[in-house]
Amino acid sequence: MITALAGGVGAARFLTGLLAVVAPTDVTAIVNTGDDVELHGLHISPDLDTVTYTLANAINPDTGWGLVDESWSVMEALARYQPQAPVTSSAGITWFRLGDRDLATHLYRTRRLDEGAPLSRVTGEIVAAWGLGLHVLPMTDDRVETRVTVMETGQEREIGFQDYFVARQHSVPITGVRFAGADEAEPAPGVLSAIASAEVVVICPSNPIVSIGPLRSIAGIEAGIVSRRSATVAVSPIIAGAAVKGPADRMLAELGHEPSVVGVARLYAPIAATLVIDNLDAELAPAVEAEGMRCVVTQTLMHGPVDAAALAKTVLSAAGAGADSPPGPGAP
Amino acid sequence: MITALAGGVGAARFLTGLLAVVAPTDVTAIVNTGDDVELHGLHISPDLDTVTYTLANAINPDTGWGLVDESWSVMEALARYQPQAPVTSSAGITWFRLGDRDLATHLYRTRRLDEGAPLSRVTGEIVAAWGLGLHVLPMTDDRVETRVTVMETGQEREIGFQDYFVARQHSVPITGVRFAGADEAEPAPGVLSAIASAEVVVICPSNPIVSIGPLRSIAGIEAGIVSRRSATVAVSPIIAGAAVKGPADRMLAELGHEPSVVGVARLYAPIAATLVIDNLDAELAPAVEAEGMRCVVTQTLMHGPVDAAALAKTVLSAAGAGADSPPGPGAP
Repeated sequence: MITALAGGVGAARFLTGLLAVVAPTDVTAIVNTGDDVELHGLHISPDLDTVTYTLANAINPDTGWGLVDESWSVMEALARYQPQAPVTSSAGITWFRLGDRDLATHLYRTRRLDEGAPLSRVTGEIVAAWGLGLHVLPMTDDRVETRVTVMETGQEREIGFQDYFVARQHSVPITGVRFAGADEAEPAPGVLSAIASAEVVVICPSNPIVSIGPLRSIAGIEAGIVSRRSATVAVSPIIAGAAVKGPADRMLAELGHEPSVVGVARLYAPIAATLVIDNLDAELAPAVEAEGMRCVVTQTLMHGPVDAAALAKTVLSAAGAGADSPPGPGAP
Repeated sequence: MITALAGGVGAARFLTGLLAVVAPTDVTAIVNTGDDVELHGLHISPDLDTVTYTLANAINPDTGWGLVDESWSVMEALARYQPQAPVTSSAGITWFRLGDRDLATHLYRTRRLDEGAPLSRVTGEIVAAWGLGLHVLPMTDDRVETRVTVMETGQEREIGFQDYFVARQHSVPITGVRFAGADEAEPAPGVLSAIASAEVVVICPSNPIVSIGPLRSIAGIEAGIVSRRSATVAVSPIIAGAAVKGPADRMLAELGHEPSVVGVARLYAPIAATLVIDNLDAELAPAVEAEGMRCVVTQTLMHGPVDAAALAKTVLSAAGAGADSPPGPGAP
């Protein structure tokens, strides 16, 4: 059994590789919901959907989010109404682009949540509808909201993650991130047991701050990973000082971390025994090990499924080398 | 000023004619919301939308509801999820067909209602977005729900209007209709003054039971029309014993009313001085007058805008003949 801690695009790509080398039913992905957002009254779970759509081979390959061959009739029609809404209203907003088929996912999810089904159950239904064999769990059934403090026109202001990520195209400097609701949130059913019983826990190549950070903000999950530290392998999302996608490099720097595999190692050393870094960062391997992590150097940039499968294999064997298998009967 | 009491398709067609002969800004339509329904968490107002889309020349001419040149991507995508929902769930249902562009209307309306805007205000925004000049008001900002008692497999069962009208294609016999919430409902702002100040009140050719009935179930509206009885003209939706569209004829019969212009006259005599009936029913004019209504015979079937405008003209002049103008200073 393999348990993967996942954000969105990078994690989804890694998981395609993992499912190529491990039976899907042996894989559990625990996915960030900190950047879930309610828009148009709909509950949108960007990372859950990116993982599902990617593994269903239905993701839009150009954007890394949303569905391929998508149509946009609803958004176009909403644009008629938006000018009639009061300026304080969020009705009819179109800056967060929702495709027609994607909207069906949000309509289904929202209705089921309104009926009282927990997000973990609804997620299972959606994943089953796409015919996927792996287990996909939201990190929690509770609301944990990633809030970002940005510096705008000389003033600090806290905004929702999507207001930062999509509306502002993550183009403004940040001074802080917090996870509202994390103190009261419980891990979703199955999360702790998936971590506890996994042969390998993989921290996918996701943003350490806003993708993996929300999972870690839930005390039970953080403690669960810590207790499996020696079986946990992280893949650095930073290659040669830059994020493959998204603002992880800038976020690290802006929050006082080193935007490099060494900075990633400092963040992950308490929870993972091993860090997998890219060949381009080979010379930093000693510095990673100085932070207390084993370091594995390989190609981490995934150009496609073949790269992803090779990376998954490397990650699993790296874990084998450092696994905390209990001593056998003949052990001293 | 002309005030029209309206259901869906028949009323919308009549209103196109009315707007051809009267300045739109002089017209107020008060529209049935008894068959509003919540599906997918969205607030759907079928009659309001049929009136708006028809007057915007955007209605689907084949169905009389929904938008012309509509696409169905969301519904098609929802069909993927529905089989995963528990049997008790309403998530992902597709029997109530919602087109993509139509969905935008429901998303906008629902969001605005959730923000606390009353339905009357949201309706004004939607009507303005379509560039219409008339005033369109829901009968109430409160929830009044048309409930239908049907006879199925030998047993009476009360269901929502859309469960009868759409899900069962109004193919089962009914034994009763009630308007849940009517006792507590207030007329929407502007409704009573539009009735009180109108030169003519028109009861559009709509179903007397489930389109005009919900308006009448609100005590203030019924009393308001009664007090304007002599200025009120109704157009019969029944021609030669049959409804032009929908189940009005069967509903009348099943509820013990005569499915004819005479049965319509009995229902409307308390609130309208005049009934406009079709040429095909000319021989029933004396029977209508025996119910205490003036009777005007003309072509009421509307094949298109020209017919609708001619009917509107006839209705307005019929009202003029029976108007309750206050006696002038020289009156005895």
